[in-house]
Amino acid sequence: MNLFQRPKFISDQDMQRIHEASLYLLENKGIVFKSPKALALLKEHGARVDGEIAYLPQALVEDCLAKVPSSFRVEAVNPDRSVTVGGDLIIHPAGGEVFIKDVEDNRRGEVTLQEFADLQKIYQACDNVNMCGYQPLSPEDVPKKTRGLWCLYESMLYTDKPWLAPMDYSSGADKSRELDMYEIVFGKEFVNSHHVTWSIVCPESPMVYSRFSCESIMEFAGRNQPITLVSAPMSGITAPIHILGIIVQANTETLAGLCLAQCVRPGIPVLPSASLTYGNLKLATWECSSPDTALMLAGAVQMYKEFYHLPARAQTGVTSSKCVDYQAGYETMQSLLLTALMDVDVTSQSAGSLENLLTISFEKTVIDNEVIGRVRRIIQGIDTRKDAFSVDIIMETGHGKDFLMHDSTLDHLRDGWQAEISDWNRYDQWRNSPYPDIEKRANAQVRDILGNARQLLEPSVAKALEKYIAHAEGDNRNGK
Amino acid sequence: MNLFQRPKFISDQDMQRIHEASLYLLENKGIVFKSPKALALLKEHGARVDGEIAYLPQALVEDCLAKVPSSFRVEAVNPDRSVTVGGDLIIHPAGGEVFIKDVEDNRRGEVTLQEFADLQKIYQACDNVNMCGYQPLSPEDVPKKTRGLWCLYESMLYTDKPWLAPMDYSSGADKSRELDMYEIVFGKEFVNSHHVTWSIVCPESPMVYSRFSCESIMEFAGRNQPITLVSAPMSGITAPIHILGIIVQANTETLAGLCLAQCVRPGIPVLPSASLTYGNLKLATWECSSPDTALMLAGAVQMYKEFYHLPARAQTGVTSSKCVDYQAGYETMQSLLLTALMDVDVTSQSAGSLENLLTISFEKTVIDNEVIGRVRRIIQGIDTRKDAFSVDIIMETGHGKDFLMHDSTLDHLRDGWQAEISDWNRYDQWRNSPYPDIEKRANAQVRDILGNARQLLEPSVAKALEKYIAHAEGDNRNGK
Repeated sequence: MNLFQRPKFISDQDMQRIHEASLYLLENKGIVFKSPKALALLKEHGARVDGEIAYLPQALVEDCLAKVPSSFRVEAVNPDRSVTVGGDLIIHPAGGEVFIKDVEDNRRGEVTLQEFADLQKIYQACDNVNMCGYQPLSPEDVPKKTRGLWCLYESMLYTDKPWLAPMDYSSGADKSRELDMYEIVFGKEFVNSHHVTWSIVCPESPMVYSRFSCESIMEFAGRNQPITLVSAPMSGITAPIHILGIIVQANTETLAGLCLAQCVRPGIPVLPSASLTYGNLKLATWECSSPDTALMLAGAVQMYKEFYHLPARAQTGVTSSKCVDYQAGYETMQSLLLTALMDVDVTSQSAGSLENLLTISFEKTVIDNEVIGRVRRIIQGIDTRKDAFSVDIIMETGHGKDFLMHDSTLDHLRDGWQAEISDWNRYDQWRNSPYPDIEKRANAQVRDILGNARQLLEPSVAKALEKYIAHAEGDNRNGK
Repeated sequence: MNLFQRPKFISDQDMQRIHEASLYLLENKGIVFKSPKALALLKEHGARVDGEIAYLPQALVEDCLAKVPSSFRVEAVNPDRSVTVGGDLIIHPAGGEVFIKDVEDNRRGEVTLQEFADLQKIYQACDNVNMCGYQPLSPEDVPKKTRGLWCLYESMLYTDKPWLAPMDYSSGADKSRELDMYEIVFGKEFVNSHHVTWSIVCPESPMVYSRFSCESIMEFAGRNQPITLVSAPMSGITAPIHILGIIVQANTETLAGLCLAQCVRPGIPVLPSASLTYGNLKLATWECSSPDTALMLAGAVQMYKEFYHLPARAQTGVTSSKCVDYQAGYETMQSLLLTALMDVDVTSQSAGSLENLLTISFEKTVIDNEVIGRVRRIIQGIDTRKDAFSVDIIMETGHGKDFLMHDSTLDHLRDGWQAEISDWNRYDQWRNSPYPDIEKRANAQVRDILGNARQLLEPSVAKALEKYIAHAEGDNRNGK
């Protein structure tokens, strides 16, 4: 990020007011934590607990905030692929989609594990996607209880970027099993002393952490893995209708989860996510690509980054469109560019997602790899080395002449950003090209990637993982 | 614009350096003005003239800069439609395109005056397009020498927003005739004392003002009409390959034209345009939608707005794509959102343009009306009134409950931005809608607009204009 100044949607005074509003709500309205263990832990650290509600005093909140690091590293099995959250922009896979749209515009559910694995191979091939794993699709040809394990297994087989843990768990025990799989690959010692994944934790808006969310925080933080807090309220539905109001609520819910994580393990990294959405009141659902949503994301990212000096994630680069069309293009760029300019550290959903996070397109994933590259280029900013001012070059070139053969042009011929899948040809070249349709062009790339992908994980480690999952399935059958 | 802070791509120190580089070039390399009258005028104001080159000293440049207003008003025949440049974002028509792409993806030239008029009717109907006229298409069924007059005539017939003068002139005399037509509509007195249009003047990069450009500045500034300076160099082709270098050159060329305009009429508004492009060296043409182009635009707008406190125009919201597809979407949003965040005052080409400014799509024009609306919503920012913090609303709503029936939700139900042409429906609703394809949906709107458009200009004034053009054609035939 070489911007000299980021855009700012909220004044310093109003950021302070949002913080104070959150402190007031945490102390006076309190947060429901549906876990006796979490409540006990918070009480131990100074919270007042009444029934399921914990009232968090200002001192506790500020003490916890002070402990959260502003950056952290997530290790990949290939050390060259490890990422630093709080450094350059990190893009991670989509998550939660249930349909696949193919290049012929057919859309269907009943996704297979093979398709999940294929998508991981595509992430591995996309140079602008920095993490793999997670759960962009939910395969239905594996047992529901071990689906998360199978997803993680396939990610581990075909990718060597940091693996985000899938979201699919039916109990805290499953969360623990996922971490066991990381230990099989990295070794127990390494996992205890490094971050190799993170847990996505979603409070239930307004102001509730389910038992499951509490367990996720306690399990992952307890085992030294960071917590991503995804407060995802919808304005007018699960949050106030005002943009500032939904930001206050998301900020409050995020601070609550952050406190629990710090009580579990002081200093554990916490990554707040801007995942707020404009509530579409006609359909009682979210509208990820409304400009109002973009403003909510920008405001929340500003709070996390600029007020709290925390890293920030955002759910951005998304579209309501059902196909890879003009609308999908402007909506995807709209929030992705805006949040990138806000200096967001991590984005989710920015590659391949359609239909308000319901559908995955392999082709859009490949095209979005370039869209992300465009945004990266923009936030990289302008080269301001002294010779870039080019006064000598202009002096040396005659009035009305060209710069084509100037040494500086020849020397820097390849500096410019180049399109990888966008069409930059002349009309006739484009018309006569094998695939004038960008989605068909992307499909050719998809086929190429899938044809060339190979297993990256050592076979012996893969075997150990298979054995572990088989064992877990046995335990499940025996009701353990 | 309610942003508290704009993004900034160039440091204060480097802005100063760009300014100094321009001063150095103006004084030491000089600018070619291919008009003895312009050279004489500049000499009279302190420039050193040698052959066709005027060397502009720092004192002259800074004196001229000090005279340019930071905002100005352009009057429409309907006073409610008049615009203030330097106030809210103003969108003006495309300009220079030669092909039309229809909804069936046929593309052809040989555009008719009827089609030009139809496009004006669409601009009139698009609430986010603030000006009409200009020359988004060049009809070929009217005499070349009076084409500009016929274009202006059709714009005057069907629209009541401010009319930009067409670019199509074969001589300075034609420029004068255009202004005569404004006088027929507004009255001579009014035109002398108000701004009713502006002239687009394009220097020939590097560092040349053609005779025609000089005459345009002298004719329009002389008759109290503002000058828009469109320095449009291509990096590595007609400017240095470095982004900072092309900004230095565009800035220099712009300052030169600004000086001439101020020498003609001190205080005449000058609107610098960021129209720089990344030079596609493979095709020796511009690449309007490269992220490098977006950076050039952002940097130039920052110079004009922040360093010189001038209003700024940018050529933005553009695409290299040949059709209204995913690429067109992300490219259109990419530069439009970025320059809007830079607080640009006026944009050109942001509605309906395809194929690097070669082709017009009526359907894209209608969709871009919404795209512009999205960008307007984002730069409008977040409502920060005290009750927008919503603390009471959150206090009043139970943990895990919803806000659907809260008074604040019902009161502000209609505050949220709503899609006009983007699809926000559920999958089945969309699939079963009359036009799932956004371009076909837009085409239905186009047909509706054209079916309902009517002449807005008083018939007697229209008659007077027709008579004037007939007279001009007679003069042309007689070689006057």
